[in-house]
Formats: sequence, structure tokens, C-alpha cells
Amino acid sequence: MITIAVDAMGGDKAPVPEVEGAVQAARQFGHRIILVGDRDAIHHKLDTHDLSAESGGSLPIEVVHATERITMDDHAAKAARSKKGSSMHSCARLVADGKADGYISAGNTGACMAIAKMVLGKVPGVDRPALSGVFPSQKGTPVVVVDVGANVDCEAAMLAQFGLMGQIYSRLVLKVKRPRVGLLSIGEEEHKGNALTRDATPLLKELDIDFIGNVEGRDLFSGHADVIVCDGFVGNVALKVAEGLAEMMSRMLKESLSATISSKIGYALSRSAFKDFKKRVDYAEIGGAPLLGVKGVCIICHGRSDANAIKNAIRVAAEFASSNMNQRIEEELREFARAG
Amino acid sequence: MITIAVDAMGGDKAPVPEVEGAVQAARQFGHRIILVGDRDAIHHKLDTHDLSAESGGSLPIEVVHATERITMDDHAAKAARSKKGSSMHSCARLVADGKADGYISAGNTGACMAIAKMVLGKVPGVDRPALSGVFPSQKGTPVVVVDVGANVDCEAAMLAQFGLMGQIYSRLVLKVKRPRVGLLSIGEEEHKGNALTRDATPLLKELDIDFIGNVEGRDLFSGHADVIVCDGFVGNVALKVAEGLAEMMSRMLKESLSATISSKIGYALSRSAFKDFKKRVDYAEIGGAPLLGVKGVCIICHGRSDANAIKNAIRVAAEFASSNMNQRIEEELREFARAG
Repeated sequence: MITIAVDAMGGDKAPVPEVEGAVQAARQFGHRIILVGDRDAIHHKLDTHDLSAESGGSLPIEVVHATERITMDDHAAKAARSKKGSSMHSCARLVADGKADGYISAGNTGACMAIAKMVLGKVPGVDRPALSGVFPSQKGTPVVVVDVGANVDCEAAMLAQFGLMGQIYSRLVLKVKRPRVGLLSIGEEEHKGNALTRDATPLLKELDIDFIGNVEGRDLFSGHADVIVCDGFVGNVALKVAEGLAEMMSRMLKESLSATISSKIGYALSRSAFKDFKKRVDYAEIGGAPLLGVKGVCIICHGRSDANAIKNAIRVAAEFASSNMNQRIEEELREFARAG
Repeated sequence: MITIAVDAMGGDKAPVPEVEGAVQAARQFGHRIILVGDRDAIHHKLDTHDLSAESGGSLPIEVVHATERITMDDHAAKAARSKKGSSMHSCARLVADGKADGYISAGNTGACMAIAKMVLGKVPGVDRPALSGVFPSQKGTPVVVVDVGANVDCEAAMLAQFGLMGQIYSRLVLKVKRPRVGLLSIGEEEHKGNALTRDATPLLKELDIDFIGNVEGRDLFSGHADVIVCDGFVGNVALKVAEGLAEMMSRMLKESLSATISSKIGYALSRSAFKDFKKRVDYAEIGGAPLLGVKGVCIICHGRSDANAIKNAIRVAAEFASSNMNQRIEEELREFARAG
């Protein structure tokens, strides 16, 4: 049985969605869950759920108390060093000590990355762990974007490692057979881009991956590439542009629809279609963003994650943990260093 | 009367939308239009339109023949230097010679920028002309993003100039009273960003503009800032992420709606709402992207522009031409240089 630690104090509405998502994941996927955080707050929320398993007995959910909590306002690096009794720290330690196979947190992203790197350490050969975002493409396949915020001002060699790690994640965890890896740029031709993309291109070509050259911003959704490599500044901007536009379009559509009575009837009649649409573009369905290159499994969720997003992040963490992803990263980086 | 030159050979379906958009603009706004390109092709298309003006006489549309055409496959810098008989070149020369107040082109963006810089020259004090994209915000106000692709690997001083030019454009052309200028980054706090944004922040603070600090990708649509400054690589990625997502969401919504009969009825009933929605998120309504900092008025349109987009680009070019935008840029840069 796979065990996933859940930072119950992370998100904006913690511990409510964390506890609810954990209960759903335990019931639906059969994973063992360790909820980490304020004991009283967690139990208070757990008591509102039916925890009996269908097989008899109760769901495999445990609670581990943590005295401190890292907030969104905390300075990431400082909090990582000083708040060692935090729920985020405790989750990472459970994984480092082998008591959990992976953990998820919807807390302060910067602090979460800093703690994961500090407590878990890096997979041998990895220069910089990278945060990877997963987007739904219109083909229905997931698109992995690496990096979406862990590293800004990247060097070309870092982008090559992102490509390798992203490719392995796509293959082993997302089950894409032969992932095509693209380099995010501003035109498909090789000479179009900036100094970084031009330097990264020959390095990506040397890797034993299906590198398809430059891709553009629209390819985050086209499905033309399965893995998209970029500097963390660019990736983070792209991620937030997408989030912002999706929110605006949904809101505008609702406004336009409710502006007339006939469209209100139309809305009612097409409700199931809207539900389907929302599900297809909803980030909550995808779970969280895996931090690639740390020794262990760490999935970082949006601060506004609801129970469904938490449940899906637990699913992703378990899938990551049951792949031999980190071993493959180590081996392929070693092979590449030997060849190069 | 304002005269706008239209590159009739630019877009993917040239000269059809160009001629149609020009006829609409001449009729609706009363501007004088010079259609530049293959004489026969333009007249062939013009003949299908009713060109009589309501006042009697005919619409103020002229045709100027150009022997060459720059295609999307042409190498931008090479084509700019070698194809001097192109419709794009002729448009720029009409403006440089004072025969037109501005021009628009839906052709090869790189070539268009190179030709504008070469033929028109730069406004005194401007280091690098910048392409600015205009996004519709959910508040209904337009958001100007500078740069969206003219300059990659920017230095901090260039970003400060982009901020100044964008602010003047927002104020004089888009009629925003006191535009708030934000720096595109990956977190609102000043220390969050990359080396470029950290270097640009003190320079933007020194300008006589309402600088509100860092903004994030979602602010392209929030209306929180009226002008957003960024490196052209980042801006171009952001623009294409937005385009790609808007297309995907529209397509998915249609698919979801037509999947069931009841939603087909729903779709029919809510059609006017959809039209309203589409209009609110449609880039065609906004016109084209102005190239800021060249001595003259050059509006670059999407290659897939339809007649409506061309018409709106002509409107924007005329509004730009009747502002004293370039004079203000020159004066404010001079004042700033004197103060600094």
C-alpha cells in the first residue's frame, strides 16, 4: 500500500479541502494517508466524515501533529530555515525517513520548494530541481511544462536537464509512449528565440529524447509537444496568463449568458455541456505540480485547491511514487554525462 | 482627412480582407485609404464592392501598385533589405514621404518591424522601437503590453523606455486618464523576479509615470494595470499562450455543447450571448499591434486578420496618427534624460 503525507495546513482554506480530499483519496484509490498539521483542527474536520471502509474497519488515515505553520506571507527561504516544526517540514521528513512514499502541499510554493530541496536533497546528477506544470491539451493528452517557477535566469544546461526530466515524467508517470519535447520560443525556426534558447538547442539535440525544436506559446494547449522546456520565469508567466484568461473567459461567458432570458433558458438546457467543458479545462482535475529532481516525491498544489484538486494531487503523488522516475533520472543523467 | 496606407498583400488571404476592411473603414470612419499591392488583384476585388459614398461621389480609396510581395516564409531582415519594391516597403515610404499619416500590414511581422525601423527611423531618444499588444481586460478597459516580440534579451533601460512609451500610448491613443504601469514578473513583491526585472524596477520608479511595481501573468486580463512592461520574448510567449488558450476554450465549448441534442437547443437559444462573449474576447475587435518608437505610425496585424480586424486596425492607425504621441515620446524622453 502506498502512503502519501498531506500537508493539512497548506492551502487558503486549510485544513478543510485537505481533509476532505484525503478522505476521498483513501476511499477511492485505497492509499494510506498521513494528515500532517494541527491535531485538533484536523480531528475536528475528520469527525464530520464517515471514515468506515467498505471492507469493514476504517479508512487508512493517520494524523501526525505539527506545531508550526508556514503561511503565504512567510518569506520562502527564511521560513524553510526557521520553521522546522512546520507541517510542510514534517511532511518532507516523513518521506526522507521512508515513512511516506510522497507528499503533497498546497502551501507557500517557494517555501515548499526550498524545504523539499533541503530535506530530501537532489537526485544525483541533477543541478536544479524544477517545478513542472501539467496542462490539458485539446487532444486530451497532458502537456508537461518544465520549469514553471523554481528557477529563473536559467543556463542552457539547466534547460537540457529539464527536458530530460520532463520526458521521463511524461513517459513513466503520465504514460505517454514517446514524448515529443519542444523548446518554448517565439517562432518555430531554430534561429528564432533569445540567447538562452539558441544555446539550449544544441544541448537538447544531443539528448536521447525526441526533441522537436522550438514550439510556441499556443503549443501549451495544442498537444503538438508532450513536454515543453523553458526558463522558470517564462514558464511561470505562461502558467499565470493561462489561469487568468481561463478565469476571465468563464466569468464573461456566464455574464453574457445571464444577460438575456432566452439565454438563461439556453444555459439551463446546455448545463451538462458546460459541466463537461469545465471539467476539460479545470486545473483541479490534473492535480498538482510535481517538483522534479528531488530525492523523493513532492507535489505542490495551488493555494486555492479544493477537495477534488487535493484528491487528484494525492493520486498523482502515488503514481509518481510507484514509477521508478527518480532512478531513471539518475541513470539517464549518468549515461548522458558519460557520453558527453 | 486622415490618410492610411494599407498593405493589401500582407495577410494569409490577401488581398480579400484588406480590400474589404478598407472599404468598410472608408465608409464607416471617413478616412482616405491607399491600398498598396498588386494593382490587378486589388481592382479585381474592389470591383465586387459598392464604392459609392452616401454623400454622392465615391469612397476615398486609391490604389498604389507594388511589384513585389513579402511572404510569411521570407527571412525578415533579408526581405527588408532586398524586396524594396514590396507593398510593405511602399506603405512605409508613403508615410515617410508624408503621403499617408500611417500604415497597417498583416504581413510577416519581423519584416514589417525591420522595414518600419529602416524606412521611418526611430523617434529621437528611443533606443529600440517596441511592438505593443493590446488585450481586452475584464473591466472593459484595454491593457497595453510592451514588448510582445520586437526585442528579446532586453536590458533594464529598454524596459524603462517601453514603460514610458506604453504609458503615453495608453493615455493619448486609448484615452486612459492616468495609466497604471506594471512590470511583468512572477510575484507581486519587489524581490520576486529575475535579474532583468530587479534591474528595471529602480529605473521605472524614476520615471514620471504611475508605476505600481510587479504584476503577474493573470494581470494581462485583470485590468489591475493599464500598461504591462516586459522583455519581448516573455511578451510574445504570453501573447501566444493567450491566443492558444482562447482558441482551445472556444473549440472545446462548441464541442461540449454540440455533444447532446438538448445542448444543441441550448446553443441555439443562447446564440446571442455567445456572439456577445466572442466579441468581448475577440482580438479582431482590438485592431492591430502598434509599433511604438518609430517616426510615423505603423500598425501590425495578425496574418489571419479578417475584414473586421483590418477595419479596426485602420481605426487604430488613424487614432494614433491624430494624437501627438511621437512628439510626446520625444519630449518625455528628453526631459527624463535631462533629469537623470
